[in-house]
Amino acid sequence: MRIKTPYLLFLGDARDALAAKTGQGIVDWRPDAVAGQMRLSGCGADLGVSELSIAEAARAGARTFVIGAVNPGGVLPDAWHSHVVEALEAGLDVASGMHVRLADMTGIARSACRLGRRLFDVRHPRGTFHTASGRKRTGKRLLTVGTDCSVGKKYTALAIERELLRRGVDADYRATGQTGILISGSGIAIDAVVSDFAAGAAEALSPDADADHWDVVEGQGSLFHPSFAGVSLALLHGTQPDAFVVCHEPNRRTMRNVDVPIASIEDVIAETIALGRLTNPHIRCVGIAMDTSALATADAMHVIEQTGHRFRLPACDPVRQGVGVIVDGLL
Amino acid sequence: MRIKTPYLLFLGDARDALAAKTGQGIVDWRPDAVAGQMRLSGCGADLGVSELSIAEAARAGARTFVIGAVNPGGVLPDAWHSHVVEALEAGLDVASGMHVRLADMTGIARSACRLGRRLFDVRHPRGTFHTASGRKRTGKRLLTVGTDCSVGKKYTALAIERELLRRGVDADYRATGQTGILISGSGIAIDAVVSDFAAGAAEALSPDADADHWDVVEGQGSLFHPSFAGVSLALLHGTQPDAFVVCHEPNRRTMRNVDVPIASIEDVIAETIALGRLTNPHIRCVGIAMDTSALATADAMHVIEQTGHRFRLPACDPVRQGVGVIVDGLL
Repeated sequence: MRIKTPYLLFLGDARDALAAKTGQGIVDWRPDAVAGQMRLSGCGADLGVSELSIAEAARAGARTFVIGAVNPGGVLPDAWHSHVVEALEAGLDVASGMHVRLADMTGIARSACRLGRRLFDVRHPRGTFHTASGRKRTGKRLLTVGTDCSVGKKYTALAIERELLRRGVDADYRATGQTGILISGSGIAIDAVVSDFAAGAAEALSPDADADHWDVVEGQGSLFHPSFAGVSLALLHGTQPDAFVVCHEPNRRTMRNVDVPIASIEDVIAETIALGRLTNPHIRCVGIAMDTSALATADAMHVIEQTGHRFRLPACDPVRQGVGVIVDGLL
Repeated sequence: MRIKTPYLLFLGDARDALAAKTGQGIVDWRPDAVAGQMRLSGCGADLGVSELSIAEAARAGARTFVIGAVNPGGVLPDAWHSHVVEALEAGLDVASGMHVRLADMTGIARSACRLGRRLFDVRHPRGTFHTASGRKRTGKRLLTVGTDCSVGKKYTALAIERELLRRGVDADYRATGQTGILISGSGIAIDAVVSDFAAGAAEALSPDADADHWDVVEGQGSLFHPSFAGVSLALLHGTQPDAFVVCHEPNRRTMRNVDVPIASIEDVIAETIALGRLTNPHIRCVGIAMDTSALATADAMHVIEQTGHRFRLPACDPVRQGVGVIVDGLL
């Protein structure tokens, strides 16, 4: 599966910037893949790219109509429906990260079939997977792990891929969630795979590669999150990482959506090594990526320095500082 | 979901006893639920129960036609098809643990719908699950865990439930795999749940209960099996066990179907406690259940005694000795 670019990012009547964060992620990380945006009246988001109708986008070479916004309830509003069909008729494929499937909407599915277009429901993995073999693959792999959900694992992985490429190192970001898949054009939504095959899907995601190639795999959940630890462990075992980066938000006290204290960085490092050793005995921690957006600059710098010192590891806020210190240590 | 008993166990033309092990498990553990067996010519298995035709079984009160054998390839042979439809017409529901779904076979699905019968594809969980909340539930829970797959986790859990009931303790076996579901009449095939919801499904499997009630949950896989550790961890977190029993086969050297050494009992105890503490800080190991079927009696007794001594825990072979010593310690 590879989603063709450039994209027309459809924001519908997204109420604000937060509702359009999938579109924003694509603009931030793949501006070259973006032909423009299309908004309906009442839309409160603006990605700051060219405003195009479907016909204009098709003439400009757009290949995929991407639903780059969510609406409350996660369904496709009736008002968006006809635009999806119009995009199919104009020659574009359609991609969506919504829970509901485009393929399950009769009118859309029929149009796509009749016109020979592809529908990408990126939250729903395609194809069949095998159970993991545990066989060691060639090439190198880095996995971002977390003390919780939503602590910057996707952002950190994308930043590390970019920094590696900038230094001339052969690298691929490997997406494991819907926004990451739309940013990179491929990947597997690992939490949507049947649990028996989750580690096997992670193996398929980063296949054998050249000895000095790095796959930078987007982590999911946390080994210490009671809802998702099984997903995190399957991804760890299937990825077989040589290196991992711990992502952490220093101000958070409890895990997302549950009444459990956030895990400590030391516990995450220790358990990731203890469990990851099973499929890669050489696994090591190569840095700590901190989301310090809730702190003033001076406080942020202080906590980053203190944390790096305490663990004797490169530490940084990827947004404020980039990930250069982590990549320095990695190479 | 509850599968109605008694069952007519259909063995088809199963070539040998191994191919009929689902049926054998039901006869061993739920003889009261078995009306009889039905075999086709060429069948090499015999469960030692009454031989009944579908019509005879229906007259004897059978409620469900259970496909109690597997055939190579895991599909439903054409020759079995008409017997399934005949059972539906005779008033029976049909249950299967096969990978292929009865519900996907047009002729069978149509007959069931027309006649108002239920089809139970026990390998495919019904209903929707939530992500796990991590909220501590009332009642007590025991989970069987393993140094590998296929080391007696189902057998040990069933034996512990039986021993608890024999002693007048309120207890329920909770099935997590297809044979266990057919034995107990309900449960969730945890490895077939989408990974995001696997821990949540485990929470749903053993709901709030009286303070002195024990749920005895059948474990799956192993925290150290590279293919299935994520399933095992989701089950551990969702079950929130107060107690666990480690199941082990002393003669096995490598994990099933992969080229990885079998985990040690000490590593399984340590990691189960380290990870299980997240949802139950009081988790403790209460025994070691050993499958010593490959050993002569004297050797078996020696290794069981040695292992119990080494870990200072009750140890036994549930088949040779029962699980009395484990339940003694538990209560």
